[in-house]
Parts: sequence; C-alpha cells; structure tokens
Amino acid sequence: MLTKSIPLTFAVVACAALMAAGSVMAQGQEPIRPIQAAKVTAPAKVELGKKLFFDPRLSKSGSISCNSCHNLSMGGSDNLKTSIGDKWQKGPINSPTVLNSSGNIAQFWDGRAKDLKEQAGGPIANPGEMAFTHELAVDMLRSIPQYVSEFKKVFGNDKLTIDEVTAAIAAFEETLVTPNSRFDKWLKGDHKALKSQELAGYKLFKASGCVGCHNGPNLGGNSYQKMGVVEAFKTTNTAEGRSAITGKDADRFNFKVPTLRNVELTYPYFHDGSANTLGEAVDTMGRLQLGRKFTDTENTEIVAFLKTLTGDQPKLTLPALPPSSDKTKRPHPFE
Amino acid sequence: MLTKSIPLTFAVVACAALMAAGSVMAQGQEPIRPIQAAKVTAPAKVELGKKLFFDPRLSKSGSISCNSCHNLSMGGSDNLKTSIGDKWQKGPINSPTVLNSSGNIAQFWDGRAKDLKEQAGGPIANPGEMAFTHELAVDMLRSIPQYVSEFKKVFGNDKLTIDEVTAAIAAFEETLVTPNSRFDKWLKGDHKALKSQELAGYKLFKASGCVGCHNGPNLGGNSYQKMGVVEAFKTTNTAEGRSAITGKDADRFNFKVPTLRNVELTYPYFHDGSANTLGEAVDTMGRLQLGRKFTDTENTEIVAFLKTLTGDQPKLTLPALPPSSDKTKRPHPFE
Repeated sequence: MLTKSIPLTFAVVACAALMAAGSVMAQGQEPIRPIQAAKVTAPAKVELGKKLFFDPRLSKSGSISCNSCHNLSMGGSDNLKTSIGDKWQKGPINSPTVLNSSGNIAQFWDGRAKDLKEQAGGPIANPGEMAFTHELAVDMLRSIPQYVSEFKKVFGNDKLTIDEVTAAIAAFEETLVTPNSRFDKWLKGDHKALKSQELAGYKLFKASGCVGCHNGPNLGGNSYQKMGVVEAFKTTNTAEGRSAITGKDADRFNFKVPTLRNVELTYPYFHDGSANTLGEAVDTMGRLQLGRKFTDTENTEIVAFLKTLTGDQPKLTLPALPPSSDKTKRPHPFE
Repeated sequence: MLTKSIPLTFAVVACAALMAAGSVMAQGQEPIRPIQAAKVTAPAKVELGKKLFFDPRLSKSGSISCNSCHNLSMGGSDNLKTSIGDKWQKGPINSPTVLNSSGNIAQFWDGRAKDLKEQAGGPIANPGEMAFTHELAVDMLRSIPQYVSEFKKVFGNDKLTIDEVTAAIAAFEETLVTPNSRFDKWLKGDHKALKSQELAGYKLFKASGCVGCHNGPNLGGNSYQKMGVVEAFKTTNTAEGRSAITGKDADRFNFKVPTLRNVELTYPYFHDGSANTLGEAVDTMGRLQLGRKFTDTENTEIVAFLKTLTGDQPKLTLPALPPSSDKTKRPHPFE
C-alpha cells in the first residue's frame, strides 16, 4: 500500500537514481537515494501549468495563487505556521512544500488526494483557502483568449475543463524537483561534499532511527506515521490526520511523513507549524518519536546534516499572465 | 517643476530614444518617444533589490511583498480595484504599475514620494499595507546571514540600513522597463508594426487631445492633472490627490497622469479602479476630460491603439530567497 500512486515520472527518476547509486560502492547501501532533475516531456503543458500556478485569478479575491502558500522563492512553502486564506482566514494546517511533492505517496498531510492533479483542485474550491469554485475558475479561464488558445494547443480540444486545469498544474509541479544537494553529491561518491560534522549527523540520523521514517528519495513522503509515538504530541491544532480519511481510530494522529529535502527552507515544522527551528524539530522528534533526548552536540550534528539536503531550487522565469478580457468577471475581494 | 526628479537612468534612456527617433523622418515629430531596455550598471544591487521586492518577510504578516500589489506577472499591478493590505484591509487607492515607473515625475498617485527609493519605504511601514516598521524590517534582514553578506557586498559596509534596503529595491525597479511595444517599433520606423485601425486610433488619440496629458516616453507620468475637467468625476473614493501634499485647494483631485504603457495589462483603471475595461476608461476620459463623446468606432480605434503599447515584460528568474535563521523573528499574521 505504501508504494501505490507514486507517479511514473518520479518512479523513473528514482529508478535512475538507484542505478546511479548502484555504481558507487561506498554509498551503495544507503537508505536514501539521490534525486535527479525532472525530464520535461510536455513543455507546453508545463508552461501552461506554470501560468496557472502563479495566477491569483483562480481565487475568489483575485489575490491568492498556488504560489501564495507554496512560494517557489521560499522552498515551495509560505514559512508561516498555517497559511492565510480568503479574507485572511487562518488555515488549519501548515502548508507542505510543493518541491519534490511528485515523489510523495499521496498529497496533503492526511493523504486525502491520491496525486498532484487531485490535490490541485482542492485549495481552489476550499472556502478557507482560495474560496473559488471550479466552475468560476473555468469560466474565468474561458474568458481569456490566450488561455483558451493555450489549452487548445496543449489538450487538443476546445473543452477547457477543471480536469485540464489541474492536469496542467500537476505537470508543472512534477518539474519542481531539487537535485544536486550536497548530500546527493555525497551519495553519488563525492566524499568531500559533506563536512565531518554533517557526516556525523547523517550517521546519527541513521543510528538513532530517524531514517526509519525519513527514507527513500525524498527522505519521507512515503508513509504515514503517528505523531507522538513514545510521548504524546501536545498541540492546539485540531487536525486528526489519517483517521479523517480512513475512519479508523487507529489512524488518529497519523500523518504523512514530510520530506526532509530543502528542510532548511521549509520552516516552521510539523503539521501545526509549532517548531520554528530545525534544532527544536530535531529535539521534539527525538523525544516523541524515538524516546531519545539528543545532546546539544548530537542535535547540532543532525541539523548540520539536514542543511545539506537543500538542492538546486527551480530556475523559473516568472510567467507573464494572459490579461483578462472585457468579458472576464472582476474579483470583489471585499464583498 | 514638472521635469524635476526624473531619474538619471530614465533620462538617459529618454535621450537615447530621442536621438534614435530623430533619425527617423516619418515619426520624428511624434509627441511620444520609444523607450529602451534599462542598462544594468550594478547587477549585484539589482539582484539584491529583486530579492527584497519578492520578500514577504518585509511585511508584518510575512505574506505581503512588493510583488503582491505590483505583480510582475500582471503588468506590475494587482488588477484589483484597490489592493488588499495586512489583515485583508481595503486599500485606499488603485495600485499603480511599477513598470516604467522610473520615468514618472514622482511616485504615488499624489506624487508624495519624489522617487522610487522614497516610495519603497512607504508600503512597508504603512499600517494598512505591509504594516511593518522600518526598524523591524531591518532587524529581520540583519538576522539572515545571506542578506547581511549581500548588503555588505553591494554597499561596502556592515550597516544594513533602511536607506540601503530602499536603494536596492529602487535599483531593481529601475530595470523594469518594457521596450519593443508594437507602437515603439512603429515610432522607430517599422510602418507595418501598426494595423490601420490602430493607427487611426493613434491619430484620434492625438487629434482629440488625449496626448495633451499622455505624452513623453511613458505616455503620462510626467504631470499632475485634474480628474474631471469638463465634467465632475463621480466616485466614492476619498482620495483628494495632490492637494493632500501641497495643501492648496487648487490641487484638489489633481492626480499624477498614469502611464499608458502596458495599459492592456493594468486594469482596472483610474485612481479608484472604477473602470474595468479600456473601452469604459476611454469613454470616461473623453467625456470628463475632453468634453467629447467618442463614437463606438472611435472608442474601438483608440482601444486598439492602446493595446499596441504592451512592451516586452521583464524576463525575470524568480529569486531564491535567503532562508531565515534561528534568530529571525517569526511572523504572527493572526495576532
């Protein structure tokens, strides 16, 4: 079950990574695999998806885009405890990074969307987030000649449906892979890529059990785990995690393990965004999940290792969005 | 008075444009001059300014950046009637485009900032906009090692002041010039660049008097004029314009004439954002400023001309923002 729904693109990348790693003796047995840049096979679709990702007209107010909460200048997150939705509503949960998200088992903290395409439709229609409807979003796009023409070019029809909208956004998001972290370089055999403190951190990361959940190409994202195994996690956040989807009491407080890639950029941490720093997050994880109090030195080493997981951030040219036409309904954010 | 404060960069560009235009006989006498791409003389400063322009940590909530209201994917504006400020406050006035703004006589609708540098400090500290303070903004930047190092590199000192922050933002904004509009190509002698309807629109634009205020390289931006000359402008917006600065009753409802460059992208129009379409704006301007009711054909022609003013939008690589450090104060947008 844990391996279902991993998109083909990422599986291919992961396989390639496995093969690449296989040729390196020293790191051949590591529980983490390097990732490689996504191969773009449908550039026009990706380009359209990029426009949609940056387009605030997909929200009721005309001011919130996918990039608002998954800011590609900020590690694909918003660096807020919980996000700000339509009319400044307080979001219920910390915004997970969109970077490398195609490698996750499913989307959202509770995995309620099976893939990026399904995820993309969620926030648009969520009254607490972009607060639009799929129908209004599609009406908006259909009123804009340049969008109509691009959808036709990409999908070969005149329909312009929400299904196409989310498919294009997902195609763009699948390109948001961040290869070449220093740790990846080390995995591929560059022994100088990690300093001794960082390497000590990695060894401790494995020896103490962090790697039990944070493994695979994304160092996470591939299983659901209970938040608070040894000790209960104290939070005022009301999210119940996986049980909200499965209905099973055993799944209460089970959340998708977040990826640790680019974790230096994706603060604050945990589903409630309660940990402001990596040091705090490592300390909490040690105590609650592993029943272990890391010493200051150990904590510093693990944090040093985690900072080697920052990869090449997407090099994106800011899209020029197609202008609204006279027929495009204007947003009224204050009504 | 009207020519003071035009930044050197733009003046140089304008001079170059004048010289270029001078060599073209046909368009040599036109009251509008082509613009040319900004020459970047201090790339590190511009790059730093770009980061700051995109950094929402310059706001109290950690969610509003310069780019929120001057979105470079949307003609340097937010395409809203008035902008959304901290805690979803309703802005008092339509957000003017940042594109080509270095060519304006002064900044803001009422010209209360003499240049882009002075402007940049305004929204950061405005309680209704980014709602931060200059002191907190500087504290935030000083807590981030990569920013500290970039400021030092650019300004050659360890001070990191708000003065340097706004200077860097202004340096970036000075690069946001949009050359190569079809109209510019026509001005430079490419007779095929405009269709006959567009050319008819331009002739009417001149003959009917629009050009009296919308002239120079920016087709505006170089004078203050009364909104509602022949007929009063009806609005619920309380902005009084230039008189708020000069204290002179004669300056009531005098606003800086907006540039018409990229006007297709910068809807809605007027300081109150009350005109949703170019057709509506042209009709209102004709009646209120010129005492003339344009026929449908005339209106269509002028609108067709205005759409030839869309230039090359800035080709920008989205910046990767330096991550906060453990010492960086976290924003609390809901407190």
